[in-house]
Amino acid sequence: MVNYETQVCTACRADAPRATQTQIEDFLHEYPNWELLESEGIPQLVRGYTFKNYAEALKFTNLVADLSEREGHHPAILLEWGKVRVSWWTHKFRGLHENDFIMSAKTDQLYNP
Amino acid sequence: MVNYETQVCTACRADAPRATQTQIEDFLHEYPNWELLESEGIPQLVRGYTFKNYAEALKFTNLVADLSEREGHHPAILLEWGKVRVSWWTHKFRGLHENDFIMSAKTDQLYNP
Repeated sequence: MVNYETQVCTACRADAPRATQTQIEDFLHEYPNWELLESEGIPQLVRGYTFKNYAEALKFTNLVADLSEREGHHPAILLEWGKVRVSWWTHKFRGLHENDFIMSAKTDQLYNP
Repeated sequence: MVNYETQVCTACRADAPRATQTQIEDFLHEYPNWELLESEGIPQLVRGYTFKNYAEALKFTNLVADLSEREGHHPAILLEWGKVRVSWWTHKFRGLHENDFIMSAKTDQLYNP
């Protein structure tokens, strides 16, 4: 168990090590609400969250956005009525880094529907 | 020329008339930054907007969200670093209604990068 939510997202360089297949599998086992999806050839960690209305979904969007500004690492956030889908990956090398595990775990902590 | 930005979005029922092909073509001609795309079998009006950073993209997201709450008609908003993609369609009948033209035109009015 890694407890990514307690870790700090480190500044990521293009030559930073990519997450290994084992790390990815361990993360998905530990955080089963997240899925590994590929979009335009980029592996991403993706989770959908549901809310009782639009205002709550918007509030969560802003919490995730504020977190991402604080940590200097930004996801794609898809906001619709009553739902938000968050996708994390590392833009610098179009893949997954340990930071993406940390940010996914921290995103979960903001969810309080 | 219809000037959709001056119109008010009317409450939409499932039996409301769908936009005709001619109306859609006229809209796309008049508002060429918008594209007609299909997602999961649903025709949608889609436009991407660019910004100088994440904070500006988030600000625009909130403006569009506030507009949609005021008008009672909600788009999908995809927020990423420096860009926002807005998609309008009418959920009730999974298609396009005149309201979607009105909301697209009003979304443009919020864009001031």
